Amino acid sequence: MRAYPRPLARLIEELEKLPGIGPKSAQRLALHVLRASAEEAAALGEAIREVKEKVGTCRVCFNYSAGDLCDLCADPQRDDSLLCVVGDARDLMAMERAGGYRGRYHVLQGLIAPMEGAGPDSLRIAELLSRVREGQWGEVILATNPTVEGEATAMYIAGLLKPLGLKVTRIALGLPVGGDLDYADDVTISRSLEGRREV
Amino acid sequence: MRAYPRPLARLIEELEKLPGIGPKSAQRLALHVLRASAEEAAALGEAIREVKEKVGTCRVCFNYSAGDLCDLCADPQRDDSLLCVVGDARDLMAMERAGGYRGRYHVLQGLIAPMEGAGPDSLRIAELLSRVREGQWGEVILATNPTVEGEATAMYIAGLLKPLGLKVTRIALGLPVGGDLDYADDVTISRSLEGRREV
Repeated sequence: MRAYPRPLARLIEELEKLPGIGPKSAQRLALHVLRASAEEAAALGEAIREVKEKVGTCRVCFNYSAGDLCDLCADPQRDDSLLCVVGDARDLMAMERAGGYRGRYHVLQGLIAPMEGAGPDSLRIAELLSRVREGQWGEVILATNPTVEGEATAMYIAGLLKPLGLKVTRIALGLPVGGDLDYADDVTISRSLEGRREV
Repeated sequence: MRAYPRPLARLIEELEKLPGIGPKSAQRLALHVLRASAEEAAALGEAIREVKEKVGTCRVCFNYSAGDLCDLCADPQRDDSLLCVVGDARDLMAMERAGGYRGRYHVLQGLIAPMEGAGPDSLRIAELLSRVREGQWGEVILATNPTVEGEATAMYIAGLLKPLGLKVTRIALGLPVGGDLDYADDVTISRSLEGRREV
């Protein structure tokens, strides 16, 4: 079988390494880059170079940041008594997108996943503890994903924070808005029932 | 809503411009690049730069090529009496992947699509005609896709080549191998019947 010219084959190989990009998609993307204008291709290459060069993590909350301190930590308008713990920066963005939360964040940079060899030491839990000890927090909200790993991580952190005498809460698990009881799984329905509130 | 740090937001924007990449995928890819090692990110950026710099089209068949002449045109082993006309370089690769064809190719760089403003002049049809006139071809195989655009392009080219006294053929349309009559569409079944051959 004939191969594409070497530089094109190399770009396809590099693209195939990306998550969710199979051989067909990699080929389509590479041919798109090849057909794109020189400016467009240069902009993409430059954006890749720049993101690696300029984006690091915030020294306080471990969110992605172009500076030493992220915009959220630097914002004087946020509530310093509320701390929301999330698994990664994408979860933080989802919370911000939803709006309504005005406190601070702490990004764990992962979840406890023993099957993948990710223990508590690989996360930013030690940093969370010293941050909680040093601040004047009224409540810590555990907003890790409602998965086995997210639940385990939340329970583990709750065990560490409770002795400090803080209010520690977990985001509600239940039926999604617009959902359908008939299509919901049993665990979600059970959690929804457990978490019922008086109206 | 809070935004990602500027360089990260910019990479997400650039990735969203790629075909088949939506906002969610772009975010996932950008975060992957950010988490990847500096070498991996540099390799991707370099591959993008290089593909634009080094890959052009073959001056004979218009396939992608790192040199003036592509590997297929430069190969003395190929049959100079057979010419296969395809829509784009991906189709050429699919033919080569299937194996069995040992002739030359001509890449049209598109198909006639009046709805998208792509007329015969935007394709490499003039180059095909002069190539056919100048060579000692025994047969031209029209292997454009079996779509409305591909069929129209094949019929248009057939009309131009027939007066030159050549054998002009079209790839067979019918049921795919491993297919199922019950699941095939009516047009495919009709074409399969029309193209029936004695066994």
